[in-house]
Amino acid sequence: MNVLVVGANGQIGKQLIDLLKESDHTPVAMVRKEEQANTFQQAGVEAVVADLEGSVEKIAKAADGCDAVLFTAGSGGHTGADKTLLVDLDGAVKTIEATKQAGIKRFIMVSAFQANNREYWNEKIRHYYVAKHYADKELLRSGLTYTILRPGGLTNDPGTGKVLIGENLSGRGKISRADVAKIVFSCLDNEKTFNRSFDVVEGEEAIENALERL
Amino acid sequence: MNVLVVGANGQIGKQLIDLLKESDHTPVAMVRKEEQANTFQQAGVEAVVADLEGSVEKIAKAADGCDAVLFTAGSGGHTGADKTLLVDLDGAVKTIEATKQAGIKRFIMVSAFQANNREYWNEKIRHYYVAKHYADKELLRSGLTYTILRPGGLTNDPGTGKVLIGENLSGRGKISRADVAKIVFSCLDNEKTFNRSFDVVEGEEAIENALERL
Repeated sequence: MNVLVVGANGQIGKQLIDLLKESDHTPVAMVRKEEQANTFQQAGVEAVVADLEGSVEKIAKAADGCDAVLFTAGSGGHTGADKTLLVDLDGAVKTIEATKQAGIKRFIMVSAFQANNREYWNEKIRHYYVAKHYADKELLRSGLTYTILRPGGLTNDPGTGKVLIGENLSGRGKISRADVAKIVFSCLDNEKTFNRSFDVVEGEEAIENALERL
Repeated sequence: MNVLVVGANGQIGKQLIDLLKESDHTPVAMVRKEEQANTFQQAGVEAVVADLEGSVEKIAKAADGCDAVLFTAGSGGHTGADKTLLVDLDGAVKTIEATKQAGIKRFIMVSAFQANNREYWNEKIRHYYVAKHYADKELLRSGLTYTILRPGGLTNDPGTGKVLIGENLSGRGKISRADVAKIVFSCLDNEKTFNRSFDVVEGEEAIENALERL
């Protein structure tokens, strides 16, 4: 499959590109700046430039020829809440619309732990959860073959490959970005994950086994 | 009808309360603070306290016994974009959910000019349009008998009672908050406005006539 990674320059995105490169799939890195695209191209990875604050048409053009879209982008913790609205919400929904426009069926969204459940939202970043919540809702209704991953607190620890997955996990937990990338990669053509949403944190079970039991 | 005005202490909300008071309807002012409720009660208006950042259940309780909900609330221009997400988007959607929970069918939303159309969004407050856009989308899908008003630039001019209404108005225009209140009031039991969305600016036609031609 040709796989568009949206947010390829991000911490999860970069690891996902590496996993795809080592596989039978072909990654296409979608990034915001020409210089980021050049860096990927120099490493032998196809790259396209498109801005989540730009038009749906431009994103659709970037997605042209791909068979799946992986959304790992985020406005990050250093920008204002206006960017949360423009990127994490509207940028995600534009990508969903662009995916449909490009005739692509498969879409994987990296969301946030319990983004579907207001009661769990952390006060300090509650607005971020609002953005993720409504982006996920749009994906649920999109008609695309979706998977929504809702990871716990993200760390830069090395991946363990062991997770705990559940449709409605209680409590709190964390997970490394490396393992989130591995899960997204594992979901790509795993039909058990089609049209499913789940919370995921670090745990005791191998990713493949945990996904099989979804 | 008993009519819940959400954002009753706002500039449109206050004028709407006055219009309802002078009519056969009974307004119920939903406000955030006890002292605001006291002010309404002293003026002979029923008032309930509920916070759009609080639970759906509390809003539903505030709506109990009402026959319609008018959403005129907004986080305003003096708060951050995080409040735009929490109030203008999630607060609006919570109110929609609460309306359904309370068994109420009628819902009128004060949205923003061309909120349904990204191409028109003003760069400076683009994030505000994102919030209104997704709140409106939730209302469209809610199953409620909705009306969505998308007014042009709001002014504090006295109302003229004359408007221009269209499902997809081009260009730019303004309208007084007084006239927005009058339109919301006129839509309340006007079946021509049921399940309709429209842009509205100052114009040449009497509100009632313009609504009849929707």
